[in-house]
Amino acid sequence: MSRIRVGVVGGSGYVGGNLLGLLLWHPEVEVCFVESVQAAGRPVAEVHTFLRGLCGLEFQDFSLDMLRENCDLVFLAKAHTEGMRFVGPLVEAGLRVIDLGADFRLKDAEVYRHWYGVEHAFPGLLSQAVYGLPELNREAVRRARLVANPGCYPTAVILALAPALAGGYSRADEVFVCAYSGISGAGRTPQPGKNLFLDAYRNIKPYKVCIHQHQPEMEQELGRVAGGTVRINFVPHLAPLDKGIYATIYLDLSRRVELEEVMEYYREYYRGSPFVRILPSGEYPQVADVVGTNFCDIGLALAACKGDGILRLVVFSALDNTMKGACGQAIQNMNLMFGLPETTGLYPLAGASWGT
Amino acid sequence: MSRIRVGVVGGSGYVGGNLLGLLLWHPEVEVCFVESVQAAGRPVAEVHTFLRGLCGLEFQDFSLDMLRENCDLVFLAKAHTEGMRFVGPLVEAGLRVIDLGADFRLKDAEVYRHWYGVEHAFPGLLSQAVYGLPELNREAVRRARLVANPGCYPTAVILALAPALAGGYSRADEVFVCAYSGISGAGRTPQPGKNLFLDAYRNIKPYKVCIHQHQPEMEQELGRVAGGTVRINFVPHLAPLDKGIYATIYLDLSRRVELEEVMEYYREYYRGSPFVRILPSGEYPQVADVVGTNFCDIGLALAACKGDGILRLVVFSALDNTMKGACGQAIQNMNLMFGLPETTGLYPLAGASWGT
Amino acid sequence: MSRIRVGVVGGSGYVGGNLLGLLLWHPEVEVCFVESVQAAGRPVAEVHTFLRGLCGLEFQDFSLDMLRENCDLVFLAKAHTEGMRFVGPLVEAGLRVIDLGADFRLKDAEVYRHWYGVEHAFPGLLSQAVYGLPELNREAVRRARLVANPGCYPTAVILALAPALAGGYSRADEVFVCAYSGISGAGRTPQPGKNLFLDAYRNIKPYKVCIHQHQPEMEQELGRVAGGTVRINFVPHLAPLDKGIYATIYLDLSRRVELEEVMEYYREYYRGSPFVRILPSGEYPQVADVVGTNFCDIGLALAACKGDGILRLVVFSALDNTMKGACGQAIQNMNLMFGLPETTGLYPLAGASWGT
Amino acid sequence: MSRIRVGVVGGSGYVGGNLLGLLLWHPEVEVCFVESVQAAGRPVAEVHTFLRGLCGLEFQDFSLDMLRENCDLVFLAKAHTEGMRFVGPLVEAGLRVIDLGADFRLKDAEVYRHWYGVEHAFPGLLSQAVYGLPELNREAVRRARLVANPGCYPTAVILALAPALAGGYSRADEVFVCAYSGISGAGRTPQPGKNLFLDAYRNIKPYKVCIHQHQPEMEQELGRVAGGTVRINFVPHLAPLDKGIYATIYLDLSRRVELEEVMEYYREYYRGSPFVRILPSGEYPQVADVVGTNFCDIGLALAACKGDGILRLVVFSALDNTMKGACGQAIQNMNLMFGLPETTGLYPLAGASWGT
Repeated sequence: MSRIRVGVVGGSGYVGGNLLGLLLWHPEVEVCFVESVQAAGRPVAEVHTFLRGLCGLEFQDFSLDMLRENCDLVFLAKAHTEGMRFVGPLVEAGLRVIDLGADFRLKDAEVYRHWYGVEHAFPGLLSQAVYGLPELNREAVRRARLVANPGCYPTAVILALAPALAGGYSRADEVFVCAYSGISGAGRTPQPGKNLFLDAYRNIKPYKVCIHQHQPEMEQELGRVAGGTVRINFVPHLAPLDKGIYATIYLDLSRRVELEEVMEYYREYYRGSPFVRILPSGEYPQVADVVGTNFCDIGLALAACKGDGILRLVVFSALDNTMKGACGQAIQNMNLMFGLPETTGLYPLAGASWGT
Repeated sequence: MSRIRVGVVGGSGYVGGNLLGLLLWHPEVEVCFVESVQAAGRPVAEVHTFLRGLCGLEFQDFSLDMLRENCDLVFLAKAHTEGMRFVGPLVEAGLRVIDLGADFRLKDAEVYRHWYGVEHAFPGLLSQAVYGLPELNREAVRRARLVANPGCYPTAVILALAPALAGGYSRADEVFVCAYSGISGAGRTPQPGKNLFLDAYRNIKPYKVCIHQHQPEMEQELGRVAGGTVRINFVPHLAPLDKGIYATIYLDLSRRVELEEVMEYYREYYRGSPFVRILPSGEYPQVADVVGTNFCDIGLALAACKGDGILRLVVFSALDNTMKGACGQAIQNMNLMFGLPETTGLYPLAGASWGT
Repeated sequence: MSRIRVGVVGGSGYVGGNLLGLLLWHPEVEVCFVESVQAAGRPVAEVHTFLRGLCGLEFQDFSLDMLRENCDLVFLAKAHTEGMRFVGPLVEAGLRVIDLGADFRLKDAEVYRHWYGVEHAFPGLLSQAVYGLPELNREAVRRARLVANPGCYPTAVILALAPALAGGYSRADEVFVCAYSGISGAGRTPQPGKNLFLDAYRNIKPYKVCIHQHQPEMEQELGRVAGGTVRINFVPHLAPLDKGIYATIYLDLSRRVELEEVMEYYREYYRGSPFVRILPSGEYPQVADVVGTNFCDIGLALAACKGDGILRLVVFSALDNTMKGACGQAIQNMNLMFGLPETTGLYPLAGASWGT
Repeated sequence: MSRIRVGVVGGSGYVGGNLLGLLLWHPEVEVCFVESVQAAGRPVAEVHTFLRGLCGLEFQDFSLDMLRENCDLVFLAKAHTEGMRFVGPLVEAGLRVIDLGADFRLKDAEVYRHWYGVEHAFPGLLSQAVYGLPELNREAVRRARLVANPGCYPTAVILALAPALAGGYSRADEVFVCAYSGISGAGRTPQPGKNLFLDAYRNIKPYKVCIHQHQPEMEQELGRVAGGTVRINFVPHLAPLDKGIYATIYLDLSRRVELEEVMEYYREYYRGSPFVRILPSGEYPQVADVVGTNFCDIGLALAACKGDGILRLVVFSALDNTMKGACGQAIQNMNLMFGLPETTGLYPLAGASWGT
């Protein structure tokens, strides 16, 4: 098979850099075009200095013609609400698209408007877009022309909760998520109070308390799994590290069960999903085990609570927000779309935190 | 008034070093005796190098006679279950004692045995010991001969929840605590997997999931406030910073209320408590605002949840585990016991993370 | 004595925040006026959230009248080249001034123009300005009306080298400085590539290699000590921590000496200087011992080198760039200017990294 | 070609874990045997939890028979002086060996005894051992039966200096190295004062000042390059990050040259060496560009100095101590020994810090 010819639109941010690193290393990919508004005309390796000697490309201005002629697939790595306008023309031009932004994740244009504060530019495309979480939508991803690559928090939370809801172990109306993210999640644009070194070093702080725009994304996808309405209480925090998401989730059990039964259900649910690891009883995920990899590690515990003896389930999940939470997952989706093994270019380990 | 003559038993660990730094700086204190098993005979400033030029004392072996003759007050900074045996003789010798360990915090010797795995050496003293959280027990601390200085997590969680329970805003049977601690909480003794640099750097991990020994301490003190049984679900995590506790707590509201009403109750509850700051609506505590200080910052939010319209309260609290969570609180207790203003040597700021 | 009434011009950056923290805590100071262009009209504690509950002031627009009427002393904490224009009017109005910026440190307006790229606004004041390093210029500081508070790197390097040059132990033409700074040195204005979290975390990088504007400041002051020309090779680096300067300096010895002789000279040189600590032979400074304090710790070693048997001296110095490298030193200068003990409000410890 | 069958002796430390991660990911390798004294009988993935699901092996006791029957190559990852005794029998058994320890790096048993404090167990093998720095000894490595894998500091310093000495640009008797290392260099065994989280976080400190055991290794190999005696002044420091070496080196130029001439010589010297990148004039290496990769980045600057106009050269080098400084280099050596492309399993990027 000839190599997949890819273009990257929005290549000068953190996500663009991460993605280019993975694509240049992928054995079945040729990077043909890299767009950036701010960096057009500059060598890619000058902006992403870790790519010195590894990438001879220059950033270019957006060109639909160039993309149509030279590419099979376009990765879109623009900020929310900015990338949206590129998608219609790209899809119309027959290109397959993986959007790492948030604009095509929500199915309901009204919900989108509520959370992102703008009208959707292509509401008609929302139903075509496939929510690119392979562990839940593997077959749809294979056939997709437009993949909405999930957010980092939703990936961690949905993978943690889907089996519990699918298996009927929990009611969906009482879910408490306490999540922590590394600072790369705040992007490369300076945000005083958030992503300056002194904002984050030796600090922990919550933000967007119960109003984070990833919440409806979780509720939408988990609602599909649960076959009903799901309400998520979601509080994200910033932690002093570069990469990593850690989610600690309390949820009601709908009946008394043994932990091992739930764990077995989780293991079965993710059989065939090479990037989800269910940890043994008594062990819990840690960021150091997944940073630099495409893994999402999941652990489970029971918490006794309430006089009536009903137990709570505590679910933990950890992933690298730049990998399984963004770029690694995008590669995984690409592999599926082009008939490659899901792990190509990602497995066994793409940059694990060796030995730590 | 002549200065308070104090002795420190267990002076070579992190807590001992922190405490000595504060005591040497306190205008009304004279440090007369510092004990350490491992470091007896060595200069204090050789072990705690930040005290070079500031402390001419040497560590000594334990001597009840020395303490009795030279001290008014003894701070005990030994590991759990180790410090216990010193307390009986010290109290009997007429010395006032502030125990920074956990051995006299629980009132029930049976509960102590369950969580700490050993028989209590002086069960008869448990009822005399005052739980040294001045914001709840100020008057009792003033008169106390034996103060059990609270744990770091309990200080953060109890201060965060006490007003909600005292005001009847919440039922006490559904509390979910997700707490993060800096690594100083793990002490100075090497614990591979926990307090080595590579264990914690670029990592987040939970530990003692729902089985942490601070849980009964929270339940005991909050039970007193609530006037009934309180059940806490408590999951602590390690975060990659040296100091700081961050607690994010979900709890049921017992009735529909406005956030401002609850906040006003909180402000009123802590009027007269100089080290608790209730943040305005829409603002949340962060570790950087309290690290190096004796403050506990508290913030509040409402989270919509459940079909029936009952809301959840989310409470945030942040403190420095080495200050309000240990040594600063011990100084605060000492001030009360000796009739000094509560903030002497601690206020306005003892080492705030200026400007970050 | 009535309290010193101070004004702060430029109060919303990191330096302003640090300074306010120290001033509010100082027993002999009353803060009467705080200026900020960006934050005028906002409460100080809203910008510097760690000051919540401790400072009721608001930032104001600059007003010479207000300062003249209400203040004895003005601290100027503006960026280089920006603060300069305020100094003339303030001095003319009879106010004493401590400038934490760089504009009055160099004596030669031509050298200033070369390194800072602008004409000096008040070249006539340069000769009046006292270089505010108390350990070298204590008496001049006492009488000064205008103090140029030294830079962070120069403080570390000058204190490390002054005795070696003053004692004739070293030729002044071969000095190699390798210095590392925490990220607070880069200020609060976003500088992509420098002070974003991802720029600095898990990274080490040099900057302004042999062209840093602090170099002429070192050469000027050390030249005065040595009584001749001094040439400094200076390479600064960014290290992944918030605060701290670490300087490792190689220099030629002019003759064979025993290390102990040099150390004794250093100790004698700084006798009477409470904030300089000369470490014993075989011990070296570390940032953790000085962070949060006004200390500069200095250590010495000999390095064998060259066939001809002439030895090299290696000098190490560590300080907190926000304290002895900026705000602590400014307070120290204020104390001297107003006849207070040098350590008032700074000593024994103002926020030591207790026990670490 | 059938896959290389490898054994790892000393597999439970940081180096062992790193190495296993790379080997499991290498397309031409089969890991057949992993020894560990402490962990014999335990699953590899239980000790190195990041390898969960990726490695089904168990640690075993040492067995020369097992290694002889099942392996072509043995990696030795034991502590200095401990691994030595395994080498004789392994070599005698006809196995090829790559020793990641220090025991076979020095050619002179007497020098070894001086720096490591023990008699060498197999002095007769020292002359056979090839110093495994491929950029200098590529052909010898190809034919080697016993490779002494270089230390992390020596790799950074030798690669930085070899061209300057080989090209006669510098005299070899005046070299000043100021090097910083991440904490993984201190290994997995607790060393209070060094590798606990609180020892290193928010800290910088030197250690083994001018007495580090890597110094003779640099002098030996650079002496071979220079064709004469080289004397290195070497001061290592600990920096608060997990991985990375940063070396800043001052050295005399033997004559006045243009920077570009020296840079061109460097580029030519490393032509054909895929893992050394010489940066353009005015750009300098940073740890973030090399962490997780096998690259050593090198930058150059001139520093004016001395009245007589002779210039100094400043050389900067950065690498990942766990990759080019240890395990990546070992893989690079293995590739050469077994006729594979030098970059197999390492290139373009094995875990780069994407985009940071």
